[in-house]
Amino acid sequence: MENIYAQRIAALRQMMLRNGWDAVVVGGSDPHASEYPAPRWKQVEWLTGFTGEAGDVVVTRDHAGLWTDSRYFIQALTQLEGTGVELHKTRVPDAVMIPEWLTGRARVVAVDGLCQSLVTVRNIQKNIECGDSDDECRIVDVPDLLERLWTDRPAIPSTPVTTLDVECFGGIPRTDKISWLRKWMMLEEMDGVLLTTLDEIAWLLNVRGNDIEYNPLVISYLLVTQDYVKWFVKKSVFGATDPDTIDSYSELKADGVEIEDYDAIYFALSDVEQGASWKIYVDHTTLNYHLAHHVMESCPDTRLIYGTSPVILEKAVKTESEIGFLRQTYIDDGIAVERFLYWLEQQLAERGEVSEWEASERLTSFRKEIPGYRGNSFENISAYGPDAALPHYSTPREGSAMIRPQGLYLVDSGGQYLTGTTDITRTVPMGECTPLEKEDYTLVLKGMIALSMAVFPRGTAGCQLDVLARNALWRTKRNFGHGTGHGIGYWLCVHEGPQDIRQNFNSQPLLPGMVTSNEPGLYREGRHGIRHENIVLCREAGKNDFGDWLEFETLTCCHIDTSAVVADMLSTDEKAWLNAYNEQVYRKLSPSLPADIAVWLRAKTMPV
Amino acid sequence: MENIYAQRIAALRQMMLRNGWDAVVVGGSDPHASEYPAPRWKQVEWLTGFTGEAGDVVVTRDHAGLWTDSRYFIQALTQLEGTGVELHKTRVPDAVMIPEWLTGRARVVAVDGLCQSLVTVRNIQKNIECGDSDDECRIVDVPDLLERLWTDRPAIPSTPVTTLDVECFGGIPRTDKISWLRKWMMLEEMDGVLLTTLDEIAWLLNVRGNDIEYNPLVISYLLVTQDYVKWFVKKSVFGATDPDTIDSYSELKADGVEIEDYDAIYFALSDVEQGASWKIYVDHTTLNYHLAHHVMESCPDTRLIYGTSPVILEKAVKTESEIGFLRQTYIDDGIAVERFLYWLEQQLAERGEVSEWEASERLTSFRKEIPGYRGNSFENISAYGPDAALPHYSTPREGSAMIRPQGLYLVDSGGQYLTGTTDITRTVPMGECTPLEKEDYTLVLKGMIALSMAVFPRGTAGCQLDVLARNALWRTKRNFGHGTGHGIGYWLCVHEGPQDIRQNFNSQPLLPGMVTSNEPGLYREGRHGIRHENIVLCREAGKNDFGDWLEFETLTCCHIDTSAVVADMLSTDEKAWLNAYNEQVYRKLSPSLPADIAVWLRAKTMPV
Repeated sequence: MENIYAQRIAALRQMMLRNGWDAVVVGGSDPHASEYPAPRWKQVEWLTGFTGEAGDVVVTRDHAGLWTDSRYFIQALTQLEGTGVELHKTRVPDAVMIPEWLTGRARVVAVDGLCQSLVTVRNIQKNIECGDSDDECRIVDVPDLLERLWTDRPAIPSTPVTTLDVECFGGIPRTDKISWLRKWMMLEEMDGVLLTTLDEIAWLLNVRGNDIEYNPLVISYLLVTQDYVKWFVKKSVFGATDPDTIDSYSELKADGVEIEDYDAIYFALSDVEQGASWKIYVDHTTLNYHLAHHVMESCPDTRLIYGTSPVILEKAVKTESEIGFLRQTYIDDGIAVERFLYWLEQQLAERGEVSEWEASERLTSFRKEIPGYRGNSFENISAYGPDAALPHYSTPREGSAMIRPQGLYLVDSGGQYLTGTTDITRTVPMGECTPLEKEDYTLVLKGMIALSMAVFPRGTAGCQLDVLARNALWRTKRNFGHGTGHGIGYWLCVHEGPQDIRQNFNSQPLLPGMVTSNEPGLYREGRHGIRHENIVLCREAGKNDFGDWLEFETLTCCHIDTSAVVADMLSTDEKAWLNAYNEQVYRKLSPSLPADIAVWLRAKTMPV
Repeated sequence: MENIYAQRIAALRQMMLRNGWDAVVVGGSDPHASEYPAPRWKQVEWLTGFTGEAGDVVVTRDHAGLWTDSRYFIQALTQLEGTGVELHKTRVPDAVMIPEWLTGRARVVAVDGLCQSLVTVRNIQKNIECGDSDDECRIVDVPDLLERLWTDRPAIPSTPVTTLDVECFGGIPRTDKISWLRKWMMLEEMDGVLLTTLDEIAWLLNVRGNDIEYNPLVISYLLVTQDYVKWFVKKSVFGATDPDTIDSYSELKADGVEIEDYDAIYFALSDVEQGASWKIYVDHTTLNYHLAHHVMESCPDTRLIYGTSPVILEKAVKTESEIGFLRQTYIDDGIAVERFLYWLEQQLAERGEVSEWEASERLTSFRKEIPGYRGNSFENISAYGPDAALPHYSTPREGSAMIRPQGLYLVDSGGQYLTGTTDITRTVPMGECTPLEKEDYTLVLKGMIALSMAVFPRGTAGCQLDVLARNALWRTKRNFGHGTGHGIGYWLCVHEGPQDIRQNFNSQPLLPGMVTSNEPGLYREGRHGIRHENIVLCREAGKNDFGDWLEFETLTCCHIDTSAVVADMLSTDEKAWLNAYNEQVYRKLSPSLPADIAVWLRAKTMPV
């Protein structure tokens, strides 16, 4: 029997023929430009079997292709076998991206405009324009295009909504946030702000849900004007009965938030009562094409003004109360990780091996014991030996590798808590390590320490500090292919902007209150992978004649194993940092640890 | 009697009244966007008495203002006293720049379009547009506007032209450079390239002159097409007699370079033989407004295409032969500086004091003894104690401070040689130093060493390395307000692009063959100033699994005084670098030094 994906693509081609489409472009995101889409929007996977986190598909009458980057080349080749889908490599020299590839190959291109950004579709449109009349070369926007074939497609998720108790768990009341946004609108002379990305909406309304795995979000749109706040969301998020009996619904209503149906956003945007040239500000980098197109075609009185959403920066700068809770949350999270590391060491001593999967499950079970735990913040990476060298390793449930008492084990994980989101990577020597493992381990650690110790003038952007995390590696001609740091939400997404620490020029300065990861690494295919990741808070460090200074406070509280450290490779400062860090971990965690683990941690945190 | 500058401004106002101009803008550069203009174009100085290197003047009927940055605030206030000219600060928060300042204050603005870039004038134009007819608000372009008042204004300089002997002194034959540019034109589908900046022309034609102090340039324009190379230059550069008898003239003619009069560029650009829509590529960031305006108004068949000149990058990447000569040139230059430092130490021991000016003159006299010396590459900065804290200190001929046998003396200088351009700063402890002087000295040195030791993957830009030179200072909350590194020409300008090493985002990667300065510093007003400057060559450092690696080779060859180094503040690596550097300086220089200086240098270069 023919490959299921080849059959699906064949069915799509039938649809294309009937409709006169030359090509269909299927994107990997959802209507809200989410990093991880809910199962309903895993359209690339349904069509091709490819499960990587980044990938777009083009099907023409005689070609089917998947565009993805080097993280997924090997995985794509395996998963696409027998589907007839060919791999197109992105982020390689001379890569031909989808819009350029379509030039001359298609005149009528169908897209699911819900799952493509305005920017992407405009780029395709520009590339297929053939100089003839508009009718000949055009984009056809077909919302939920694949649903005609994907008969058992999951519905839009609508998990229960929780409202945040900011007094108990940090943050700013939603009414204050709405007032702030309205002031911003006045200054910018906007009549409304439309938010379409889910973490921005969750932040502004102080609501959380479970619509997306690992991300406590609610599928919705939000429209704020001076007169009203309308939240467009599946009503079932408030339960099956009368929503007025639900606390979160009543609380939102009391704060002036009107609850409208998810699809009512289309009507709201053509609100004629607003009068001519109603100006709505929206972030065009994440707005979906379908909604943008709807406004342009059907709402003559509505003018969309494109720019960066002001919510992104406001959300990234944590408040004093959030920072207070974060400090404790990272201590609690550290206790879970220490208990796990102790358990793992004991198990290896007793049994001689533990599977990566079992270890991962056990780590999660320790996190579950923390009050306020609401799930993991991403899929645990539990990777031993050569598995850790795969940049996006996914630990298989069945047949995962056995961790043994030698070499390096890498565990990258994080929790979602009422009081914050955590993310930590520890690379742990499980016993004897090779000289190369120790050298790599120490060089990566030097990078993490250098960035931890950084002091910098206000105005400095992450890309201006990134080299500090790489310099020790670079000097020995080693490097890692990912960014050094990403922003982290507060019981929100584990990846958030606008700041980051990487080579790419991002002019956003690091500001006091921003929480960012510090995670250099090193990966040797077939041998080992190393990453040391702490989460750091940017904070003020005083002013003097030379400037206004900022520094990092490390939030992550979990010891760094020194058994693989080549002490001679550390400078006096680096040694002092490492010893002080481990000592502080011991002091903060030991009072809450069982006696045997505290004793074990005391030994692990002795100075080098 | 009234201040001479006030008189000149009054005369300018009379001219403005007669002509109906509301404002006159006088810029600080020449028709070729030169960093340092020849005396003829020191119009700001003639009009206001201000001698700083960066400054623009606006005169309206009731106001006269000088716009300059913080380097010159104190100097400007002193020099403008009695002139009636007010200081407008630039590069400060909320600075109002000239175009914005003119908004609403002037409707008819006169400029000397020769000395203003197209970009600047367009910006002024945009700001004075009042929505009425074009006639009401307009730019009036008056070439040599001030000449009507400045009756003894110097002529356009026309010093003798020298052609380079590339076989003897490095570089590429001009015919090869012209072929390269013509290939570039073919690829870019351009009919011609117009070069207006003087170092680009000097580089392409392998010619040098002395039209601008410290810069071996010839005032000229260059137009290259597939059919001809026309050099627009004062014929007197070839001497008063028949140019055909002059070697350089004959050599250029033999290579197909046609010599035209400087002003003939205007006729050439309206060359009707080229046919309609003749496309000429020109760098709009340096093209003067007058020439651009001439083409737009009077050359209907000529289309100027604006972009970055390809010559800039090609010139910055030195050839193997140039690099070979540079290494020797920096050794020769180092000998001159070592002889000077020895002399200074001896003089202080004998006399107890030496004036900054005498020291500066003596340094120049040592350089003059080097074969191939063609002048200094900029005005020596010879600054003792607090004088060194002034970022743009100019050593006065009369009454300069006395250098005494204690504290720090900073000397920043460079030479122009047939075989390259040098630039070096040494900060020298003249005797006892305070603990703060030593600490600052060591921290700045740590920065210079960190950048010297950098290894980085191909594609890295200077702004991604800059923090290495600052990190040691930043960690103690100290900083310097200038860039860390600038490109350097080959017997050309001491400042050249496109690469640099500074905080500003400049995406130009550092490429093998580029020569850049490495000069962190620290300045404490009223106390001391420190700068350590070596010149580094970017070179290949091998490829491996992790990338294609580059590193720096230090060209500068002159010892770094270790008597002010706090050895405990240096890491093992830093100490090793410093000792190896000084040892290498001794080994390279001592064979060419008199015995007494070699003995002295041996002592100076002993390991810390």
